[in-house]
Amino acid sequence: MQRTRLDIARIQAAREVIDPIFLDTPLYRCEALEPGLGCTVSIKLETANPVRSFKARGTELIASLLAGSGSRAVVCASAGNLGQALAWSGRGRGLDVTVVASRFAPAAKLDRIRALGASVELVDGDFDMARERASAVARHHGVRLVEDSLDIETCEGAATIGLELVDTVPSFDVVLIALGGGALATGVGHVIKARAPGAEVICVQPLGAPAMTLSWRERRVVTTGPTSTIADGVAGRRPIPAVLADLLLVADDAVLVQEASIVAGMRMLLHHAGLVVEPSAALGIAAILEDRDRFAGRHVVTIVCGGNVDMDAYHRWVGAPPIHDS
Amino acid sequence: MQRTRLDIARIQAAREVIDPIFLDTPLYRCEALEPGLGCTVSIKLETANPVRSFKARGTELIASLLAGSGSRAVVCASAGNLGQALAWSGRGRGLDVTVVASRFAPAAKLDRIRALGASVELVDGDFDMARERASAVARHHGVRLVEDSLDIETCEGAATIGLELVDTVPSFDVVLIALGGGALATGVGHVIKARAPGAEVICVQPLGAPAMTLSWRERRVVTTGPTSTIADGVAGRRPIPAVLADLLLVADDAVLVQEASIVAGMRMLLHHAGLVVEPSAALGIAAILEDRDRFAGRHVVTIVCGGNVDMDAYHRWVGAPPIHDS
Repeated sequence: MQRTRLDIARIQAAREVIDPIFLDTPLYRCEALEPGLGCTVSIKLETANPVRSFKARGTELIASLLAGSGSRAVVCASAGNLGQALAWSGRGRGLDVTVVASRFAPAAKLDRIRALGASVELVDGDFDMARERASAVARHHGVRLVEDSLDIETCEGAATIGLELVDTVPSFDVVLIALGGGALATGVGHVIKARAPGAEVICVQPLGAPAMTLSWRERRVVTTGPTSTIADGVAGRRPIPAVLADLLLVADDAVLVQEASIVAGMRMLLHHAGLVVEPSAALGIAAILEDRDRFAGRHVVTIVCGGNVDMDAYHRWVGAPPIHDS
Repeated sequence: MQRTRLDIARIQAAREVIDPIFLDTPLYRCEALEPGLGCTVSIKLETANPVRSFKARGTELIASLLAGSGSRAVVCASAGNLGQALAWSGRGRGLDVTVVASRFAPAAKLDRIRALGASVELVDGDFDMARERASAVARHHGVRLVEDSLDIETCEGAATIGLELVDTVPSFDVVLIALGGGALATGVGHVIKARAPGAEVICVQPLGAPAMTLSWRERRVVTTGPTSTIADGVAGRRPIPAVLADLLLVADDAVLVQEASIVAGMRMLLHHAGLVVEPSAALGIAAILEDRDRFAGRHVVTIVCGGNVDMDAYHRWVGAPPIHDS
């Protein structure tokens, strides 16, 4: 494999810095999902921790580095999960954390960021506008801007999930990874390609927020107009060139799924696995639902990457009484 | 402490036999629950595994022993979780598993037992009637009867949770434990009293199934009439003397909670922790809700012991759209 920005030794070293509460998350076969999906399904569960997503694996690295170098503040743009994770990691190390978010980010996520002691600044626009504003705040105050997926620590943190996969599951054929900015996909993908090269790395993005997938397919950065998806955690429209370059080296495929499939995936995870997940975390199941033949009989690992949902919205999507869920 | 039937060395040895997929489960502080409860709350989460409850910790021990001694079959009575766990552990070791259950056990639990390859036999009565029938089946076929809470392996398996608590949480003041037959309470309680004697061990049972709590209070076995609770996992009416004897040595208190509090606890775990749990798993939160003053400002660990619910019933209890949840 050509060299990505990642390095296995650094990813292993990251495990020593990350609070163990975020490591060695549950990884188990979920047979109740299998009749509906036609393949063997293992879940890597990233929701059972204080911030209910995998993002703290990366923010733990960043906050330790900053605290170690005497920094006192940090800022990021976030659809919610990165902000919550940075707030948690920063608070534990005495950092002032500012999170810039879209006014359209789920209220539940913004409330949790504030509850963790961070300042929240809202912008009237999407995630990319929040990113610009965060950058301006960082320049103005001279503090570190955390850029998800661009900053190598966010990818290395996510990559520790990959180590746990290759060190635990005896054999798997496919890993399904939610694709947004690319930290999770390039991080986990790097480890899979380095340590379990026989497994297929498939990234999954919503049709309504396809920028990175289109970029991967065309092998150049493709930006898009406004996104339209319930999966706020992966909704960006301007891929980062360095992340795309890594993704081109580690992803075997990138697929787009419909909103209805994401909702069906969330419903299956609730009814058959007892898991409340955010839309991004159901992208893997959505991909299986849209292409059963591709996965038939194979052992598929899907990373359930976050569980921060507004419960009102969740109930609207998933519906209360299970009709005849698939 | 006077000697219970349990022994720390044996509990530590049990960790070597239990499939690691059931060990070292998530244990984390859940701040989103705290404003509503008035205390520091940590969750020990036993739902993120292939059988969605802690029971496999015990059945792993039993199935290994049986397989090691050349046994080919095993039978148990179960409200669902023990049966599912024994089915999983038995299947992995080539054992024929029979589960005797009440016809009133949740259909979701019975379906999962069958899906794991076990035979299910239903009785027209409650759990205690299922226990009698299982005993008869065992005698007739000359196979091992697994008796939850009476069989020391079920307590030792549960006790491994206690080791994970004392080895992980820096300090806690109280552990809240669902009380049914007593395996979880005596197992975890033994370890807490041996290794973290300053912590209070409080058992929680539904008012509608109070036999073990009444027995603990009167220091003698008290049987009751038919149980009436949605917490099927802890509904028994004939405490086992040897288990009560252990409970008297390790429990600091045993409290009874109302059904409405159990439902409120389930709702809080859904809305503030994103967890779908069965009623038994919400008993700890219910206990806090009923006696906030007792727990105010303290660090409380609650064991979320299972997540096997019939989703129709769950939606009826918890309600679909979150009104103004506490």
